[in-house]
Amino acid sequence: DDPLVIANEFSEVHVSTVRTRNGMRLRVRDAKAGREILLCPLELECLTWQDSDTFSAMLRTPFGPEEDD
Amino acid sequence: DDPLVIANEFSEVHVSTVRTRNGMRLRVRDAKAGREILLCPLELECLTWQDSDTFSAMLRTPFGPEEDD
Repeated sequence: DDPLVIANEFSEVHVSTVRTRNGMRLRVRDAKAGREILLCPLELECLTWQDSDTFSAMLRTPFGPEEDD
Repeated sequence: DDPLVIANEFSEVHVSTVRTRNGMRLRVRDAKAGREILLCPLELECLTWQDSDTFSAMLRTPFGPEEDD
């Protein structure tokens, strides 16, 4: 199937399902950078509990938290 | 369009695109609880930077962080 595409002028993200040996996953792929993550149903469920603070915190640490500055 | 469905024996999550006045969003919906979140392209992009620690932290605080215990 074709992926879902969510894009704006800065970002383009492709979203699709993947069947793995451990079950279904959602693949979220940054089409420009080529980075991707596979999310299981529980991880997706816990996304629905989050508010914008969670994403603000993620955005403050691009490419993941570092040990220190 | 039909949503993507990512499910296991405990969880069922529906994923679809939504066109809002602010642009495209990915809707992630917990089909059992009815909770959902709309994610913009940048929020989706920053998901691809995360590792399992981020999700472990989310799972430790179901339904979002509280002020204290």
